Amino acid sequence: MTPALEQLQKALKQLPGVGYRSAERIALHLLVEKPERLPQLVTALEAAARSVRRCTVCGNLAEEEHCAICADEKRRIGQVCVVENVQDLAALERSGAYRGRYHVLHGKLSPIRGVAPEDLNLATLIARVESGELTELILALSNDVEGEATCHYLTDRLPKAGLKITRIGFGLPSGGGVLYADAVTLKSALEGRRNY
Amino acid sequence: MTPALEQLQKALKQLPGVGYRSAERIALHLLVEKPERLPQLVTALEAAARSVRRCTVCGNLAEEEHCAICADEKRRIGQVCVVENVQDLAALERSGAYRGRYHVLHGKLSPIRGVAPEDLNLATLIARVESGELTELILALSNDVEGEATCHYLTDRLPKAGLKITRIGFGLPSGGGVLYADAVTLKSALEGRRNY
Repeated sequence: MTPALEQLQKALKQLPGVGYRSAERIALHLLVEKPERLPQLVTALEAAARSVRRCTVCGNLAEEEHCAICADEKRRIGQVCVVENVQDLAALERSGAYRGRYHVLHGKLSPIRGVAPEDLNLATLIARVESGELTELILALSNDVEGEATCHYLTDRLPKAGLKITRIGFGLPSGGGVLYADAVTLKSALEGRRNY
Repeated sequence: MTPALEQLQKALKQLPGVGYRSAERIALHLLVEKPERLPQLVTALEAAARSVRRCTVCGNLAEEEHCAICADEKRRIGQVCVVENVQDLAALERSGAYRGRYHVLHGKLSPIRGVAPEDLNLATLIARVESGELTELILALSNDVEGEATCHYLTDRLPKAGLKITRIGFGLPSGGGVLYADAVTLKSALEGRRNY
């Protein structure tokens, strides 16, 4: 292994889900097997770093001032779904179950990991709510202590007049049986029971 | 998802072991979570592409004319281990079990995938053997039809005078029991039995 190869492996190993062996495999793939893909990857990385930024309205990734969702006039303006990060937004979009807009917090409150309210994309959310344009805020934060704390903080801080605040449902995942659900999921499922 | 992000995901998805979800995760990691790592990765990729080339003696990766192993005078000159690719060389090096030199073929003969002798790094191997410097050639090619065919081709082509040609042992892997070994491994193990 040459020094430049070791440096490349080290840089690759820092990526999420890439371990020592995958880093070696990817590095050799780009240097030996398919060297034509290396400049393609560099170009894609540089183009993305240059052109991708945050939507000034919702915090989603954008190449213009507004992201594709905020710029889409067909999406319901008054309904805003609050998510922790862009991956969560992408998962909701893939589900096709939501036609409103989003607000990406880029994290959740966590005293242990040192994430305070000012580290989150909260100021623009409060400004959106205060503008009076919103009718419903759906809190799609994760079903854990930190997600719950973030929801509490939000509902405390936001002016409530005329705004419906909801929390996405918790319970058994699709295809999941009671037998295989963990205790916390079952607790959520019982608490979230509905008339049938 | 913005167009530049989609291009980046597409480029990442072509890497070995990176699927749709990992590509998304890596792209967002580099753009949102740890944007400082993106230029580091680009620099490492460009440096590797610029400085890494093939050793003119053995075909291993090198930054000089000769790779670190060919340049190391403490490695036995006369013993050469023939491997399919740089990953195999790296695995043997990690084992610490070998102190000779290498020859990397960069593939194995495969009529089905259209790999002919001229596609492999064979000419320099024949030149090394013809130089008369070698005493033993260890064929560490894989235990399959293509590896076997490549070994046959090599032994046919190489001048045999004074050269010991060996094939690495086949059989049960370390920690492997007979019960869990597949039929081909058991066949190899029986054929490779030794006096005890």
